[in-house]
Amino acid sequence: MEKRIAAATASYRLLTQKKYASKKILHHRRLIPNFNEVHRSCSNSGGFMPHCGSAPIQKFPRRDRQKSSLINIQNIPGIQHRTFGSAIIQRNPLFSTLNHDDIIYFEKTLGVKNVIQDDEELETANTDWMHKFKGSSKLMLLPENTDQLSQILKHCNSRHLAVVPQGGNTGLVGGSVPVFDEVIINTRRMNNIISFDEVSGVLVCEAGCILENLITFLDQKGFIMPLDLGAKGSCQIGGNVSTNAGGLRLVRYGSLHGTVLGLEAVLANGDVIDMLGTLRKDNTGYDLKHLFIGSEGSLGIITKVSILTPPKLSSVNIAFLACQDYISCQKLLFQAKRKLGEILSAFEFLDAQAMNLVLNHLDTLRNPLPSSIYNFYVLIETTGSNESNDKEKLEGFLVEAMESGLVSDGAIAQDSNQSASFWNIREGIPEALQKAGAVYKYDLSIPVEKLYDLVEEMRIRLGGKANVVGYGHLGDGNLHLNVSAPQYDDDILGEIEPFVYEWTSKHHGSISAEHGLGLMKAEKIYYSKSTGTVQMMASIKKLLDPKGILNPYKVIPQLLLST
Amino acid sequence: MEKRIAAATASYRLLTQKKYASKKILHHRRLIPNFNEVHRSCSNSGGFMPHCGSAPIQKFPRRDRQKSSLINIQNIPGIQHRTFGSAIIQRNPLFSTLNHDDIIYFEKTLGVKNVIQDDEELETANTDWMHKFKGSSKLMLLPENTDQLSQILKHCNSRHLAVVPQGGNTGLVGGSVPVFDEVIINTRRMNNIISFDEVSGVLVCEAGCILENLITFLDQKGFIMPLDLGAKGSCQIGGNVSTNAGGLRLVRYGSLHGTVLGLEAVLANGDVIDMLGTLRKDNTGYDLKHLFIGSEGSLGIITKVSILTPPKLSSVNIAFLACQDYISCQKLLFQAKRKLGEILSAFEFLDAQAMNLVLNHLDTLRNPLPSSIYNFYVLIETTGSNESNDKEKLEGFLVEAMESGLVSDGAIAQDSNQSASFWNIREGIPEALQKAGAVYKYDLSIPVEKLYDLVEEMRIRLGGKANVVGYGHLGDGNLHLNVSAPQYDDDILGEIEPFVYEWTSKHHGSISAEHGLGLMKAEKIYYSKSTGTVQMMASIKKLLDPKGILNPYKVIPQLLLST
Repeated sequence: MEKRIAAATASYRLLTQKKYASKKILHHRRLIPNFNEVHRSCSNSGGFMPHCGSAPIQKFPRRDRQKSSLINIQNIPGIQHRTFGSAIIQRNPLFSTLNHDDIIYFEKTLGVKNVIQDDEELETANTDWMHKFKGSSKLMLLPENTDQLSQILKHCNSRHLAVVPQGGNTGLVGGSVPVFDEVIINTRRMNNIISFDEVSGVLVCEAGCILENLITFLDQKGFIMPLDLGAKGSCQIGGNVSTNAGGLRLVRYGSLHGTVLGLEAVLANGDVIDMLGTLRKDNTGYDLKHLFIGSEGSLGIITKVSILTPPKLSSVNIAFLACQDYISCQKLLFQAKRKLGEILSAFEFLDAQAMNLVLNHLDTLRNPLPSSIYNFYVLIETTGSNESNDKEKLEGFLVEAMESGLVSDGAIAQDSNQSASFWNIREGIPEALQKAGAVYKYDLSIPVEKLYDLVEEMRIRLGGKANVVGYGHLGDGNLHLNVSAPQYDDDILGEIEPFVYEWTSKHHGSISAEHGLGLMKAEKIYYSKSTGTVQMMASIKKLLDPKGILNPYKVIPQLLLST
Repeated sequence: MEKRIAAATASYRLLTQKKYASKKILHHRRLIPNFNEVHRSCSNSGGFMPHCGSAPIQKFPRRDRQKSSLINIQNIPGIQHRTFGSAIIQRNPLFSTLNHDDIIYFEKTLGVKNVIQDDEELETANTDWMHKFKGSSKLMLLPENTDQLSQILKHCNSRHLAVVPQGGNTGLVGGSVPVFDEVIINTRRMNNIISFDEVSGVLVCEAGCILENLITFLDQKGFIMPLDLGAKGSCQIGGNVSTNAGGLRLVRYGSLHGTVLGLEAVLANGDVIDMLGTLRKDNTGYDLKHLFIGSEGSLGIITKVSILTPPKLSSVNIAFLACQDYISCQKLLFQAKRKLGEILSAFEFLDAQAMNLVLNHLDTLRNPLPSSIYNFYVLIETTGSNESNDKEKLEGFLVEAMESGLVSDGAIAQDSNQSASFWNIREGIPEALQKAGAVYKYDLSIPVEKLYDLVEEMRIRLGGKANVVGYGHLGDGNLHLNVSAPQYDDDILGEIEPFVYEWTSKHHGSISAEHGLGLMKAEKIYYSKSTGTVQMMASIKKLLDPKGILNPYKVIPQLLLST
């Protein structure tokens, strides 16, 4: 027995030493600062990509798009409805349109240069990161602080002017751009770090701080942010919190509902709600900050955030493993939670179809385990405070997993280049899918024991019509289901939807694991939320934003708000 | 240098081996299953103990207490107000009193035996765990499931009958007992475990499950509850979630806002809100379960809970350390978070005054570090998956802490008896305080760097009039400030209050770290919450419970609800 374990350990080491010594693949998730170059691993186009044909950009048909100056806007017939998939969204007729006095007021409040009417700047602010959603706002406001933001919101509310709160505009569900002519309020000028407590690790900052800047700031202090995203170079912490961003560290540090200690938010009527506590324990009444975490700017605009940051630990280890079946992946996760417990920081998986796509379409990537094609691959990351202890623990765990047959082959990264090459396989999947042709993407949470059943059922359902690929954050029960086909095809879409939503709903899953509902899935909410819950959401929306000016047409089905 | 480290390590081992070999002190926190015998380490009587004289039980003066049968209740002048400290609470005149038809309805819905009118049972249900708060309810209802609970709440709402939701009745702020004649709805019959997923660790159960039963159930599966309390033998998970219970594992696993994945709750009007997700990631709209976590039964009654449970880890180590000053305790915490990081599971502290009280009043306890009296003591617990790695990590950390002078002396427990003896020092403080005479107790969250300043200021303020003692969960920033005096004295109270609340408020602390507001602190909420937040709380209360029948007179200042 001892001999076999020793041999298995040697096999790991041998694999890694032989195969990766000369590789220099950048780990883009860590190394590329420019967001525009950062590859998104979690994009989800849901039901909208089919309408794009093979082009990556879908612009919605619009009528009477105006190029005229703002002063004349109210005299020109505005855009009154937009087609949205098969649904038509009507512009809320209760909303006003901007007039000269509004502009004068905003310029007086914010200064002329912070009242943006420039076409080019507005084009960017109106368009989402994927170039899928596009509004036609004629105005972007850039408040510098909470007081200014409060004043402009109060004005918008009194004037029935609809508003889109916007951070880094990196959302994937059309939540951060206007649908019609809503006023864009961007928080990018509110970007100060207010305080950092090196004993408690509590960071307090303004909403417009870019995530990567916070990561850099904390790094110098020996701490990390409890969330990390591909979009970190552009996304703002206020937007992260508003959308309850998940990201790469959730399996270790949990959701923002656990790590955000306090918020300041401005309600639609301009009231500033100070919930900016910095305490881990505070049981003095309802913890209302949670209403604003994940409500996608529809209840208020977050202006300040207090967040608990974990200390930066010195030891990171990464293993890339092969499993023959999904049940082995499940059991491996079970064991990893037990045996690696406190140091486990990622547990990702991909199937053979995903691996093949990566190997076929991304030239720079190589299979870390090339001796055979396996049905599943698992990437495990550990983060701890003692390099030798952690490595020993991971190796012991892996030897045992090989002995018991859960793992068929595997490699442990010996340096940061090898670590990066492992991560690149996992994170290269979306790019490979895009290169392979048309792709139908679904971002789902499903109980782990059922998670891969959906992939298999979809495969049977589609037969040879398309390539069904499954991968994702197995440690969080988050499946990225992707259907790849040579081109978009209504027959394929008809096979996928509404089946995929119905299946997810039947298995008590979520149709949006981490991206939110935004404009894209607002009307699909009932697949994941009970009627009573959605009604309570609508009641709270009406209570806090009675005129419905904040991020209209999103998150909540329109019918509920118009009645 | 190496020699010194080796010597220091030897000193730890020597200390522990010599001093604890023959000790057999029970670790009551772990070993005593009967809740009535369990000593509460976190009791907090706030401003009410002074009115008790030296007796441990305070019963509020009541008028016209009725012994008559329920049928006659409406014909007898009811209790219309209660004195409460210096404040007088009026019974809400809009609430009805029970009549014969109500009883008939309840008996038909629940069965006769689940409609409790027995004096003895009601006496227990009307009285809180500390015997400080006592109501005069004539009726306790025991629904068996959500449907029954929904029906009886719907009836109460339509009849304007006020209700107290009750779990194990182990709360410390008068939140779980009636103030006047509210109907008690106890969830103890709703005690089924619904499901447990051994891969994800997600437990779903009914609200009436006793925490200790869940702990036992999970232990057999190789998991633990993410919270543990002294009251675990009686408290129910529904009550834990309703009060956002903190407890002993918060520093490691975070608050229930992070670990509770889903809830089912019944609103005042009987509507059942199904938010019982079992997913770690679900961004489909507002996460409304958070409204019910910590709202103390004032927005709805929790009927089912879904909670993420961590795997049980095999290795637990405990160290008892001495520091010369508070800044060293702070630095030690900073280092522990960094060096022990992933295995740190408790960081408790006590001052010399607390240690002296324990040694003077609890005969069975000995000072683990008797060679000198130090100003501060720290208890550190680690929990991990590898005994030798973890021990090595802890020892390395402690040697370094001694080398750098942060720690003056210390011992690592070598077996469970020694571990228990260390914990008993920390947990013996409240009992020692009670034996020492009158005690004014405050449970506060304060930013760690300021936390002990309050103890020192209070000491200066009181001069020789009283003994000021500080201890608590330093890792969570939770201070238990206790003022011990030979007897209760209005002069002493006048020196403490409102100073203690004002000081806490000024330093952005919380006047209730983990116990909630209940009846005791409802009117003190502004010390910790902004006016806007409290107003929003009141708006939400009115929205979800327009007749105000759920747990009236508690959590929210009465004035806000009556306007």
